[in-house]
Amino acid sequence: MDLNDWTVLVTGGGGFMGSHLCGALLRAGAQVRVIDNFASGRPGNLDGIMDRLELVNGSVADEKKVQQAFCGVDAVVHTAFPMAMRERSLETGIMVDYLAGLFNLLKETISNNALFVYVSSIAVYGNQQYVPVDENHPLEPVMLHGAVKLAGEYLCRTLAHSHGLKAVILRAADIYGPKNTRVSVPVRFLMNALAGQPLRVFGSGRQSRTYTYVDDFVQAVLGVLVTPAAVGRVFNVAGDQVVSMYDLALLVKEIANSNSPVVLEENMPTDDRRLVIDGSSARETLHLGQPVSIREGLAITRDWLLQDPGFYK
Amino acid sequence: MDLNDWTVLVTGGGGFMGSHLCGALLRAGAQVRVIDNFASGRPGNLDGIMDRLELVNGSVADEKKVQQAFCGVDAVVHTAFPMAMRERSLETGIMVDYLAGLFNLLKETISNNALFVYVSSIAVYGNQQYVPVDENHPLEPVMLHGAVKLAGEYLCRTLAHSHGLKAVILRAADIYGPKNTRVSVPVRFLMNALAGQPLRVFGSGRQSRTYTYVDDFVQAVLGVLVTPAAVGRVFNVAGDQVVSMYDLALLVKEIANSNSPVVLEENMPTDDRRLVIDGSSARETLHLGQPVSIREGLAITRDWLLQDPGFYK
Repeated sequence: MDLNDWTVLVTGGGGFMGSHLCGALLRAGAQVRVIDNFASGRPGNLDGIMDRLELVNGSVADEKKVQQAFCGVDAVVHTAFPMAMRERSLETGIMVDYLAGLFNLLKETISNNALFVYVSSIAVYGNQQYVPVDENHPLEPVMLHGAVKLAGEYLCRTLAHSHGLKAVILRAADIYGPKNTRVSVPVRFLMNALAGQPLRVFGSGRQSRTYTYVDDFVQAVLGVLVTPAAVGRVFNVAGDQVVSMYDLALLVKEIANSNSPVVLEENMPTDDRRLVIDGSSARETLHLGQPVSIREGLAITRDWLLQDPGFYK
Repeated sequence: MDLNDWTVLVTGGGGFMGSHLCGALLRAGAQVRVIDNFASGRPGNLDGIMDRLELVNGSVADEKKVQQAFCGVDAVVHTAFPMAMRERSLETGIMVDYLAGLFNLLKETISNNALFVYVSSIAVYGNQQYVPVDENHPLEPVMLHGAVKLAGEYLCRTLAHSHGLKAVILRAADIYGPKNTRVSVPVRFLMNALAGQPLRVFGSGRQSRTYTYVDDFVQAVLGVLVTPAAVGRVFNVAGDQVVSMYDLALLVKEIANSNSPVVLEENMPTDDRRLVIDGSSARETLHLGQPVSIREGLAITRDWLLQDPGFYK
């Protein structure tokens, strides 16, 4: 993929998704600009590529910083998100900052006639009503961060109607991999397995997720940039394997070559869903290759944990 | 209707809908508190009832003011809205203030275990895909204020799931009547007819709306307060008559006893939709009476314009 003519602004470039994306964009030849206030992102995530990036140190909620960051930008990928996935505390400031930041970006995108890639989440679907969950599934978020992501989707869609915004919405499934800012289940299992600690599986262990390796998300973003037909569309971004908690624990044990016991804690409350996400539309439209297998993604993540054991300290 | 035991907070109580609502709540025996910063509302809209209200002078975006306004509140009706209906300028501050205000109200509603009545708009539907538009119609707003209203709806719905919020969503059709803050088509036609000026109808004149007299909106809110089964539901609030621009002009001429010419300006761009809104679900569930006829609503509005000719000066 050749992005030599592109200048791409990555919000939250110091974060998990953002930093992987920056590396891939540079490899594809793009000029990459990052805007990040490093509230949850880390400069260290950009080690090795920092000297090839332009960095705007600040928040997207700062209108002046956003204007400054937009000079000559062809596309924006909005990965910055200030809210924990299962945030329950209701803080006006966090939500408002997010929507103000999004709005600042959308305005500049429109006036620069750029492309906006909105990183949404499968949290917009809420409890799944059928399997697998495709992009037409009803939207009924049950967690605050899903409602906020969905509010952002509607701002994008409406400004496409009213102001000619060019936007693509990517609904990310459970993404995991090296530099996961918030410890996801695959990473937690790997850490425990490498430390010889028990892998605790809550409930029946049959709850499952479409875990998606971070590089598949990155490839989807790159695909969007080179696919004009993607403009105006909404895509799930998900791997093609669904794995139960129990099977994930066994696989992690094997990949970490660990003797850790798998402990079923049946009385613990759990999110018991078998979340099967259909990512085929993105794969077809964006001409993506075969997703990274769970086995392979876990192995890469294991190697990273072994190389960077202090990341979560 | 007896609301003797109720303390109701009306946001935007000095506005069009809000002031009509305050009067009706007082007549039903409720204790009424208003929070308004009078940015678009007017103290004069509360003439005659101001001494029976409690007034918190400030914006709902001010978290402290909202906390102060909530003492002892059983229900909140959120009519305040800072954005013009067809707002095209993209000002981060206006949108963010609205969502911050909404969020402040939702938090206090949850911690006071009160009832939240969210005033949404048929703008959440966007271009109608079938007729009449019921509450299951797809949501695809095409104007910014529709996207913002819809973002608010999803915050309400999601917090009902995640935090036990008790909320009812009312999607108001084109509401008109005395004290219309922004001059609606029926009010503009009446003003022109009373002044002997031409009634200008753009396009074919066949575009039509489900014009709804403001008292029908007020009755729906009162119905929500006394109908526990309404909690968690979404209702269109609309009259039962659809009228074309052309027919509206003729009717206004008759009601204003005016010789004004009706001028068809076929070359002017217009919003050509025949917006037919189905308000039957609210009427049945909330046991509302027959809506005010267009003829009657226009006559009351005419009388008000004659009594208060300086309102729009």
